Amino acid sequence: AAVYPFAECLAQGEALAAALGIPALPVEVHRFPDGESRVRLHPPARTAIVLRPLNDPNARLIELLLAAAALRDGGAARVILVAPYLGYMRQDMAFRPGEAVSQRVIGNLIAAHFDGLITVDPHLHRVSSLAEVAPGIPALSISAAPVLAAELAPGLDPRTVLVGPDSESRPWVESIASPLGLDVLVGEKVRHGDRAVRIELPGKEALHGRPAILVDDVISSGTTLIECARILRAAGATSVEAVATHGLARMQDLQRIAAAGVFRVRTTDSIAAHPGSIPLAPILAQAL
Amino acid sequence: AAVYPFAECLAQGEALAAALGIPALPVEVHRFPDGESRVRLHPPARTAIVLRPLNDPNARLIELLLAAAALRDGGAARVILVAPYLGYMRQDMAFRPGEAVSQRVIGNLIAAHFDGLITVDPHLHRVSSLAEVAPGIPALSISAAPVLAAELAPGLDPRTVLVGPDSESRPWVESIASPLGLDVLVGEKVRHGDRAVRIELPGKEALHGRPAILVDDVISSGTTLIECARILRAAGATSVEAVATHGLARMQDLQRIAAAGVFRVRTTDSIAAHPGSIPLAPILAQAL
Ligand SMILES: Nc1ncnc2c1ncn2[C@@H]1O[C@H](COP(=O)(O)O)[C@@H](O)[C@H]1O
Ligand SMILES: Nc1ncnc2c1ncn2[C@@H]1O[C@H](COP(=O)(O)O)[C@@H](O)[C@H]1O
Repeated sequence: AAVYPFAECLAQGEALAAALGIPALPVEVHRFPDGESRVRLHPPARTAIVLRPLNDPNARLIELLLAAAALRDGGAARVILVAPYLGYMRQDMAFRPGEAVSQRVIGNLIAAHFDGLITVDPHLHRVSSLAEVAPGIPALSISAAPVLAAELAPGLDPRTVLVGPDSESRPWVESIASPLGLDVLVGEKVRHGDRAVRIELPGKEALHGRPAILVDDVISSGTTLIECARILRAAGATSVEAVATHGLARMQDLQRIAAAGVFRVRTTDSIAAHPGSIPLAPILAQAL
Repeated sequence: AAVYPFAECLAQGEALAAALGIPALPVEVHRFPDGESRVRLHPPARTAIVLRPLNDPNARLIELLLAAAALRDGGAARVILVAPYLGYMRQDMAFRPGEAVSQRVIGNLIAAHFDGLITVDPHLHRVSSLAEVAPGIPALSISAAPVLAAELAPGLDPRTVLVGPDSESRPWVESIASPLGLDVLVGEKVRHGDRAVRIELPGKEALHGRPAILVDDVISSGTTLIECARILRAAGATSVEAVATHGLARMQDLQRIAAAGVFRVRTTDSIAAHPGSIPLAPILAQAL
């Protein structure tokens, strides 16, 4: 077996391969001036573990199909996709008539070209299991809760409260809080009128004079995070930081988040490794 | 039946639909800030003709899969892809070990999601037929030669010579020249040493004092075109222009081509309609 990381996750791929005791063989992608991609691979192993996050997913998906085909051409018997971040999970139904259900289309596409899928904390709403998304292949969803808890542990103030933005996040926030022995508060999305959604936080009085850590699966625009931070500060939290599995936020989003009084944002290297990102390689290696 | 054009070929889609006497129902694409695409369609017809060129193909391909799925979800029984320009045709083998054969991967992908494929002058080298590229579905390759000949006809100097860059282009150049009664010259690619390829043009003396028109299937970087133009001018051609089915050249390429003494470049609207581009809708309608 060997790990085939794309360039954007080379360090993660090397860490994963080292943990598994197998080689990391980088996938070479060349973009021609006309926008077409050429994918070139080292000789395939019988079991090929292709590693690539699926943020900004369109070109990445096509290149993954090219990689899978090149591996099979070279004799790979099993081609597993490890996508620490799995895109296209939000569009799980036609919200308006005529809309493509991209979650299903992309899930089927992955299932048609790979023999297995591993991802971390996929953003599933109305669909409850990854098996429904990628039918017919083993599909494993692993939780980053243990690595997030381990990251928070050193020097943690035991009076810290972990805060989830909505009721759906409760089990997940609790799985981080319980090994740390922390209290949990969970918000509620309350609909006002037709479209406006406001977050309310029952029991927020408990935050007075205590540090708060917001926990979410994905940080993207940061809108939810910023509204929560406002509530936590108004309730008297002494400090507000945030931790999430996936950091999709762009620079300008991070600046808005900082300006809202969130003094630190910690995420894993599911999308890109940057100084201080929490490495997923150990839990990916366990899952393989 | 209805035509479903994407935004970049809306005018062509409307012309095609008008020629067929069926409605044109534009496909709406929204790109979310995270790079994911949302595709939304008008209610599907039983036979849906999806129209989109496949230049810069990666995101376009994913969106085509989304569109095909949304059409089937809505009850379309037959979903035909009309891609006037078909990308990914050049990589028809592994030129170096480990390379993905993208022509085959993309052809199979189209065959798996559409019930038919129509394109214009695909750039096929070592593979001789479009049926091999898109196995199992009716795949029709139509020639733009008649519309190019019709475009050249008005006011044409009968002493004009049509010039093809290499021996592969001969049948195609002749199919444009013969209805116009023009002479044809065809170049030869001569390999010098390991990599350098030079074009030679046997019989080029015949060009002296006559206008020349270079004919190719695709104009992209313009390198071939510029080298040919140099030969034609050195041989004493009174003027050099170029005509091709597909205009992939970018602005800077067109400027280099003009600077090489090519006074006019004419292409069809296979990739994008611009003032003066030669409309393909009539021959697409005939093929449907
Ligand atoms: N990549 C995306 N970015 C932003 N919104 C999306 C994305 N994909 C789907 N949506 C929309 O998000 C809404 C569903 O989000 P949610 O209720 O959070 O599951 C629907 O209106 C979708 O059309
Ligand atoms: N989109 C592309 N742009 C430029 N070169 C390409 C493209 N796709 C494939 N190639 C390369 O073009 C060469 C084959 O071109 P040809 O001999 O003209 O068929 C091979 O080296 C391919 O890797």
